[in-house]
Amino acid sequence: MSEVATDELVQAAARLQTACRERGLSVALGESCTGGLVAHAITQVSGSSGYFLGGVVSYADSAKMTLLGVPEELIDRHGAVSAEVAGAMASGARRRFGADIAISVTGIAGPDGGTADKPVGLTFIGLAHHRQVSTRRFEWAGDRSANIEASAAAALQWLIESAEAVQP
Amino acid sequence: MSEVATDELVQAAARLQTACRERGLSVALGESCTGGLVAHAITQVSGSSGYFLGGVVSYADSAKMTLLGVPEELIDRHGAVSAEVAGAMASGARRRFGADIAISVTGIAGPDGGTADKPVGLTFIGLAHHRQVSTRRFEWAGDRSANIEASAAAALQWLIESAEAVQP
Repeated sequence: MSEVATDELVQAAARLQTACRERGLSVALGESCTGGLVAHAITQVSGSSGYFLGGVVSYADSAKMTLLGVPEELIDRHGAVSAEVAGAMASGARRRFGADIAISVTGIAGPDGGTADKPVGLTFIGLAHHRQVSTRRFEWAGDRSANIEASAAAALQWLIESAEAVQP
Repeated sequence: MSEVATDELVQAAARLQTACRERGLSVALGESCTGGLVAHAITQVSGSSGYFLGGVVSYADSAKMTLLGVPEELIDRHGAVSAEVAGAMASGARRRFGADIAISVTGIAGPDGGTADKPVGLTFIGLAHHRQVSTRRFEWAGDRSANIEASAAAALQWLIESAEAVQP
């Protein structure tokens, strides 16, 4: 993990904090491939407890089911790295934490785990806001650390967009 | 966050991974003040999905109750930063994830939130292994980042001790 990228994540987290606290919005996370990096960036900023409720690092499929309520058949049918599971993780995190906005990340950070259909770097991010759930698909081309950081940056960016779109 | 300290955490995580995979032990986390840093260090190491089930970043008290099953009366009586709550977080994480070993961290990273009784830097770590729950108390003297890193390092160190004490 490079120090520069980490600084960028913390800067994004500071902007997210301002946007959420100005609007009284709370945030929760469901992280798989980012493994807690989004939560870590958010909580590096003093005052984050004013809007950040928490997150689940659902590394094992069983954790996605038990802690975030992702249906087993969704994982069986589409795989843990899929838009469908990303959406279910985000809505599960939003519901379990009782947050206004929740974001999820599921992907293949590498170096192992890639297939022809789902290469290393493939990542889905889900965002649940009110009753709406959206997903975005990314394909990163870096090594494990770079892919994890790129996913965390994209998640924070989408949270910022989503929060700043709310009328203060 | 300094790069050096982060490297040390990742080295500790690599040692933990070896100890757990050699023994077939699974690990889960309940993190409050470390905010996902322990999970992030663990998942920086490729192959961590072979023993790491996941964690809860239970930043809000409501998340400690809902996601980790910490009794509300325990928080009311002893405060969220207490040996009692650290123990309940660890046993809750172990149970919810179905892990062999779970560790929890709850503390006051600062700069705000300290009191005469519970100063900035006060941190409790809980470890649940089989049916036994133990806690340790620390008082760090650094700034927010340093306190978070010291707590994460102590948690990883205790996990390593606990795993390496098991006969391979």
